[in-house]
Amino acid sequence: MMQQILDDITAQMALETDRGKVADYIPQLAHVNPNQFGISVATPDGQVYSAGDANTLFSIQSISKVFTLTIGLSKLGSTLWNHVGREPSGDPFNSITILEYESGRPRNPFINAGAIAVVDAITMGREPEEILDEIIQFVHFIADDASICFDYKVARSEIDHEDRNAALAHFMKSFGHLQYDVDKILNTYFHQCSIAMSCEQLARAGLFLVSNGINQPTGAKVISPQQSKRINSLMMMCGHYDGSGEFAYQVGLPGKSGVGGGILAIAPGKGAIAVWSPGLNSVGNSKLGTKALELLGERTGWSVFSK
Amino acid sequence: MMQQILDDITAQMALETDRGKVADYIPQLAHVNPNQFGISVATPDGQVYSAGDANTLFSIQSISKVFTLTIGLSKLGSTLWNHVGREPSGDPFNSITILEYESGRPRNPFINAGAIAVVDAITMGREPEEILDEIIQFVHFIADDASICFDYKVARSEIDHEDRNAALAHFMKSFGHLQYDVDKILNTYFHQCSIAMSCEQLARAGLFLVSNGINQPTGAKVISPQQSKRINSLMMMCGHYDGSGEFAYQVGLPGKSGVGGGILAIAPGKGAIAVWSPGLNSVGNSKLGTKALELLGERTGWSVFSK
Amino acid sequence: MMQQILDDITAQMALETDRGKVADYIPQLAHVNPNQFGISVATPDGQVYSAGDANTLFSIQSISKVFTLTIGLSKLGSTLWNHVGREPSGDPFNSITILEYESGRPRNPFINAGAIAVVDAITMGREPEEILDEIIQFVHFIADDASICFDYKVARSEIDHEDRNAALAHFMKSFGHLQYDVDKILNTYFHQCSIAMSCEQLARAGLFLVSNGINQPTGAKVISPQQSKRINSLMMMCGHYDGSGEFAYQVGLPGKSGVGGGILAIAPGKGAIAVWSPGLNSVGNSKLGTKALELLGERTGWSVFSK
Amino acid sequence: MMQQILDDITAQMALETDRGKVADYIPQLAHVNPNQFGISVATPDGQVYSAGDANTLFSIQSISKVFTLTIGLSKLGSTLWNHVGREPSGDPFNSITILEYESGRPRNPFINAGAIAVVDAITMGREPEEILDEIIQFVHFIADDASICFDYKVARSEIDHEDRNAALAHFMKSFGHLQYDVDKILNTYFHQCSIAMSCEQLARAGLFLVSNGINQPTGAKVISPQQSKRINSLMMMCGHYDGSGEFAYQVGLPGKSGVGGGILAIAPGKGAIAVWSPGLNSVGNSKLGTKALELLGERTGWSVFSK
Repeated sequence: MMQQILDDITAQMALETDRGKVADYIPQLAHVNPNQFGISVATPDGQVYSAGDANTLFSIQSISKVFTLTIGLSKLGSTLWNHVGREPSGDPFNSITILEYESGRPRNPFINAGAIAVVDAITMGREPEEILDEIIQFVHFIADDASICFDYKVARSEIDHEDRNAALAHFMKSFGHLQYDVDKILNTYFHQCSIAMSCEQLARAGLFLVSNGINQPTGAKVISPQQSKRINSLMMMCGHYDGSGEFAYQVGLPGKSGVGGGILAIAPGKGAIAVWSPGLNSVGNSKLGTKALELLGERTGWSVFSK
Repeated sequence: MMQQILDDITAQMALETDRGKVADYIPQLAHVNPNQFGISVATPDGQVYSAGDANTLFSIQSISKVFTLTIGLSKLGSTLWNHVGREPSGDPFNSITILEYESGRPRNPFINAGAIAVVDAITMGREPEEILDEIIQFVHFIADDASICFDYKVARSEIDHEDRNAALAHFMKSFGHLQYDVDKILNTYFHQCSIAMSCEQLARAGLFLVSNGINQPTGAKVISPQQSKRINSLMMMCGHYDGSGEFAYQVGLPGKSGVGGGILAIAPGKGAIAVWSPGLNSVGNSKLGTKALELLGERTGWSVFSK
Repeated sequence: MMQQILDDITAQMALETDRGKVADYIPQLAHVNPNQFGISVATPDGQVYSAGDANTLFSIQSISKVFTLTIGLSKLGSTLWNHVGREPSGDPFNSITILEYESGRPRNPFINAGAIAVVDAITMGREPEEILDEIIQFVHFIADDASICFDYKVARSEIDHEDRNAALAHFMKSFGHLQYDVDKILNTYFHQCSIAMSCEQLARAGLFLVSNGINQPTGAKVISPQQSKRINSLMMMCGHYDGSGEFAYQVGLPGKSGVGGGILAIAPGKGAIAVWSPGLNSVGNSKLGTKALELLGERTGWSVFSK
Repeated sequence: MMQQILDDITAQMALETDRGKVADYIPQLAHVNPNQFGISVATPDGQVYSAGDANTLFSIQSISKVFTLTIGLSKLGSTLWNHVGREPSGDPFNSITILEYESGRPRNPFINAGAIAVVDAITMGREPEEILDEIIQFVHFIADDASICFDYKVARSEIDHEDRNAALAHFMKSFGHLQYDVDKILNTYFHQCSIAMSCEQLARAGLFLVSNGINQPTGAKVISPQQSKRINSLMMMCGHYDGSGEFAYQVGLPGKSGVGGGILAIAPGKGAIAVWSPGLNSVGNSKLGTKALELLGERTGWSVFSK
């Protein structure tokens, strides 16, 4: 039945003519074919249902912030919150105004400034290579898939267009909110964002947030139940930038979007959903991805806001 | 067992020495004894569990915004969103800056400006008395209790200290975002906020949001399942002003606080919780109320973010 | 020769096709014929040179803020600055954002909030009629012309469209930055703005700022040399809202504009210039008025920034 | 008599106990002895009057922005204004909020972002060395003194603490408001700010702004009368950051301050004043320097706002 739902949604998405606008700030993202659509649902019993382009790799971009946040909470516990807040920002993902208003402390770990601060917090004196090695190993572990890797061309291209993020990083540094070298932090950050995954891989990687911190099919204990709950709350409150309220209203699940067109959504106790379509809406979240999740919610009743 | 939990929490709260700061902007609120604490849980099977001062009346203040939002969605459906947005604001409850930035359109129905816009939207040419009559009848209906009423002394006192809200209302009006007379809208708004309820009454009044729009014990169909889900999402995203992220992180339930020290929280499918303690934390939400809800979550496992 | 200059400028202005946009927020201003243009120069030797519609009455609007500031400094001395700042705001004349950022204290006496605060400061427990009587007497005194009066229809119309200014006033009041009744303060403020004057009257009224506080032709000592200098500095820094830098750059004289299309400019030691044309530029200052003052500067060399 | 005035002022300043706070964001500035005070007045007839530490070199810092603005206007004419605005910002010198609000275009050439944009505008494909060579030659020319040079230790130290300015530069670049390499632009900018001059040298360097663009003693035609007037207007409106209104009010002359404690003020037709004392007031301008200029104004009557 889940398979039928995903097939129906994929068929319906194929008919959509207004597919949003592909991110064009770096060439590697701009060249992606906007007509692609994939969806996968991984359930705690070990099943993965997929439809459309669910095995095509795409750039997960900001979805990676969920993974570095998880690493940060594992390593630092609640002292991570000395580095970054946990309130919705009300501003776009790359806004600097609120950063000035709050003296360089980023609002939450899912806006760019906050994710950069998380990278700084987990650096602990190490070089980018070491941190990136830890990040990719962690992704292998949670997705149970050692084939996942960085897309170095995408990372390179991001570095070549780093100015907005460089501004955020230097700004935080000027307030003493970053400890390490800005160029190295950004290097790590851009590589983290360049990770390429398919919907299937991403859905599996999200399973630990479905079952209180444990990837049930593999039995891997990723994080404590308490932290799992809290990561979900952050995804709900801040996962879609200034479109987070809209996503909560329409979809009703914790989720995190990336500018590559992917979204990872979590239905606690039920399943992890990864959806991907490159065209974005006006606030930078996948247009068809959001729509598909709405339809999935209607068909399955999955929403944290209903019984 | 729920009774035991509430008794334990109440006992623990009695030991707290730092109880926050009672709202003091109007004398009627300032004079409330800060040592009071009450909690009630109403469940879909018709049980109500209570402890502490659960039968003492208090001023529900902004919790009333949940009720007028429900009325607004019932009457206007999705056209209500022409009047008000549904994104967290990232700003305090009475901030005017974001209102200027967004040309007079309030961010969501739970900041003061947004609640005032909801009153304007449901006015439909009527006088304050008629609208207030509708509001109080609605509260009687959902709480199944016709004894609930306005506290006219509180309302009067609010009117006498109206300047911040008058600024918000005139500002919206100057952008054409209010249709009716500012003084009348504010009159309605201040009376709505003055409604006095006990924890028991409030917990019962929240039951319709526990069970997809239906007050199960009474069988009253209050709103559609779709709208119920969405009201919960708004409570989650915006129910605690710029402390909403913190509340989601610590408590993990949709909730709405009032400056009188009350909080209504919803555990879909499980129960409606009303808690009250007059002292507020730095962002204006009940200090012990929030703590009590955290403890309740730990003991019951109620959180929309875990399975 | 000055007469020739003014005639030339008036002739040139008659050829202008892009005359800006007449203020339309109240009907009384919207109906003014945009093709009018007048200019007068009053010199300390008692001469007044005029051209165009220099004897037509127009609504001086915000130019009146120079007069109430002068009254405020006379009555309160430097304690006036407890009520209002003296920095350019960088924001439009009716912005409320900076008012929130600075806790309700207006930046300078020439933005609306600041002028309202000046009215409050000079109220001293009196009724609007008494204050307005003082204001109009003062204008009679400095202009040496007892025929000048309020335009009650304009004032009435402003009151009927008061929302933006009411928002500013209630907002300041909520921070304790206004002492008296908001409705009365606004009543005074709108009448003050409604004063109708001709270019000739206005140029004469400005003479005291040309000669260190003394209206040389009448010998009236209006204010101290120190205060005269300071009023000029405020006109330079803040007289044209967020177009003040542009006016200083293009014209180089202290000046104050009004939304009725008038501008009063002061060339210390040389003369007071009043110019009027109803069409406004994008920041709300008279389009042809500004242009005419630039031309006058080129022809006369009057600028405080050259020798 | 001018000599007497300067001696009196210097004697009076020696008695001041509250001398402000020396800039401490780089060690080279932090180590300067706060008890120093110097003042020089250069007049168009070739006289230079001095008192106190008028021959001690200090870091002119932001005063250098007057010189690069002059170069920019010489080279680019009014097309310079495509790169930067000319309105007071109402914000501190290093604020980034208004830069976001105005899409990366700096408000004026005297805030840091604007000065960086001027450096970019005059770069024209050249390396920092070439531009810096042009800048120092220009300073030699206007001051008639070839001994003036950069302080490379100060420049180095600024580069080591570049984060705030790097944030501004990257931010502008991200909006396409800078054309050249951020690191090179900043390198030029920090060297420009490191120029070391004495009060005597600085007063002479300001003479061209006293006499409509001509350094009268040397006869050097530096810039057109029109541009000279406009540079003065910018100094008046924006020369002291968010203390510009206060400076205009208290001193009444166009001026530009630097965080090294220097101020250059211009009395058109009368003289150029350079004053220096390292302690700063709360908005970053020399505390005693401002006071000394007020006293000078009282004694000489120099103010553009009186006759």
